Amino acid sequence: MYLCDRVQPFSVLKVNDRYYRTVWMEGSVIRYIDQNGLPFRFQIKESRTYRESCAVICGMEVRGAGAIGALAGFAMAQAFLEAPAIDPEIFLLQARREIESTRPTARNLFYATQKVFEAGIKEKANAVKAAFTLADKDAEDSRKIGEYGNDLIHDGCCIETHCNAGWLAFVDYGTALSPVYIAHEQGKKVFVYADETRPRNQGARLTAWELQQAGVPHSIIPDNAGAWFMKLGKIHLVITGADRIAANGDVANKIGTLEKAIAAHEYGIPFYVAAPSSTFDLECKTGEDIPIEERPENEVHYMEGPDEEGILRKIRVTNPFSSAMNPAFDVTPARLITGIITEKGIIHPSATHLANP
Amino acid sequence: MYLCDRVQPFSVLKVNDRYYRTVWMEGSVIRYIDQNGLPFRFQIKESRTYRESCAVICGMEVRGAGAIGALAGFAMAQAFLEAPAIDPEIFLLQARREIESTRPTARNLFYATQKVFEAGIKEKANAVKAAFTLADKDAEDSRKIGEYGNDLIHDGCCIETHCNAGWLAFVDYGTALSPVYIAHEQGKKVFVYADETRPRNQGARLTAWELQQAGVPHSIIPDNAGAWFMKLGKIHLVITGADRIAANGDVANKIGTLEKAIAAHEYGIPFYVAAPSSTFDLECKTGEDIPIEERPENEVHYMEGPDEEGILRKIRVTNPFSSAMNPAFDVTPARLITGIITEKGIIHPSATHLANP
Repeated sequence: MYLCDRVQPFSVLKVNDRYYRTVWMEGSVIRYIDQNGLPFRFQIKESRTYRESCAVICGMEVRGAGAIGALAGFAMAQAFLEAPAIDPEIFLLQARREIESTRPTARNLFYATQKVFEAGIKEKANAVKAAFTLADKDAEDSRKIGEYGNDLIHDGCCIETHCNAGWLAFVDYGTALSPVYIAHEQGKKVFVYADETRPRNQGARLTAWELQQAGVPHSIIPDNAGAWFMKLGKIHLVITGADRIAANGDVANKIGTLEKAIAAHEYGIPFYVAAPSSTFDLECKTGEDIPIEERPENEVHYMEGPDEEGILRKIRVTNPFSSAMNPAFDVTPARLITGIITEKGIIHPSATHLANP
Repeated sequence: MYLCDRVQPFSVLKVNDRYYRTVWMEGSVIRYIDQNGLPFRFQIKESRTYRESCAVICGMEVRGAGAIGALAGFAMAQAFLEAPAIDPEIFLLQARREIESTRPTARNLFYATQKVFEAGIKEKANAVKAAFTLADKDAEDSRKIGEYGNDLIHDGCCIETHCNAGWLAFVDYGTALSPVYIAHEQGKKVFVYADETRPRNQGARLTAWELQQAGVPHSIIPDNAGAWFMKLGKIHLVITGADRIAANGDVANKIGTLEKAIAAHEYGIPFYVAAPSSTFDLECKTGEDIPIEERPENEVHYMEGPDEEGILRKIRVTNPFSSAMNPAFDVTPARLITGIITEKGIIHPSATHLANP
């Protein structure tokens, strides 16, 4: 059995006729979908100790803010199960430090370890419970985002999305794709234009794979083609995720989001961002306060995938003696964003204070 | 000796310390740079008969409007050298038909075969001369485009370009890149942001290779990153080529050109198109009359390049069970174009009649 029954009612995504979350726990074992292999190899892997779980986050087998947070919570719970009966505190503090050092910039991770640690210290049995609550909350918030976003989707709606802000990036449903899944569940006819999202191709690899599993009609398009399809009237709505949202409603998200927002604005197409309210960062007054990660240029130079015999190969796709630039994110100004879909409702970016706790 | 001396004065591009054109003729032999191997393998190939030359165009070893036109002219001249002394007309008409059937949509090709045929029929010795004149005219026009475009480039200018409208697509200099080469020749400090230009990566492969050979500082950027660099003030000027220009100044060019034009307009950055006046098609009143080629989806799904051992591999880069869309071109409306750089000068797109013969 891959999946505990309690997950079922929330779960949207079937793979090979089974419902899955991206990460879950059974007894002391964490099970997760290995995202590194997707879409070419679907594999459930497991980690039996908190240390193994740390390696899963480090190796990016599980990626995406929500999914990382849930895995970190379960890993903290594993530490409580592993802790010695006498003087468990030293062991637990060390475990927490190790988990938190896997990916220092993912906020959900710190939030999750803190919550599970505090619950378990009071009463050991509560650690696992707290971890499950966190994962459920992530799935529930995503589901709510989907329900609010669903109101924006009419029958026959064609939606463009960028990168992967779907089920794989969270515990279930996702953010940008959650409204699509709900609309599809309800029998609305929808079609998704999935930007391939160079350089890492998360759109062509992960979003397309998710949509295929869910049976949602879709097509992959080169990042260059978005504005053209908008001009031709083929796109009715754009929804993307967000990595961080500043107090004024400026949104940092995967590189290329800004270009789509400008094009959507040009053609009067609604441009929405979907994200849980935890994505808002009041310490960033505007988008200019959000630091933009410059990633290694080799992500532009090399691509990986199976050859005709199914063997994974890494090839050079650029001129060998040229350099490349690889900003991972860009910042879309609030004025180009029609609304932000959160678990609390849809808000206009100039009213972001409403979403803050 | 790879290159006849007469080419030297026009030639801008050095490879391994020699000057080259993309295609030229020595005696009855046509020599050309095999573009299929670039940037991973630089190879001069030759074709000794007009039939071999037809195969070079069909196999896309030589691509780009100007380069194809020149090669077709030389191939027609080869036919005159091969023709029997008695009743050469039948042979020559057959040869012309064969050359013209290699790529039926490339207008320059028909123009070139006609000119060389007419010259050679009058006086056999004039065929080769006419073919050289055509190639020289292509190089000369490109050079003039460069000189006019050079006026737009200040010292320290950072220029974004899309796809490959450089030296390789013509006999010499190219169109969009010609102003860059002239500015660089004159000692101006320039920097080029080369869009990788998915799905065929002509920017990352050909433009980057050209710029490297010419010693022009440059960097490859994902197609997603253009607007972001514009917003950051890092791009001062955009120049692209054109595949066809309608009578009202709308420009059909490689997919993604429209997105860059919209973004440049958003940030007040001058957006220029560079093309010889033969690119204008008065039979197309507006961009809506220009047919847009939908290319095979496998160009999106697969990429080719050398693996770590230098062996060329073709890999899948998208979800195997998803479809893809691959429009090859888009149409940028005249209102988003600052000016069109032709061999006759720079014109505003609303005054395109000035460029027409």
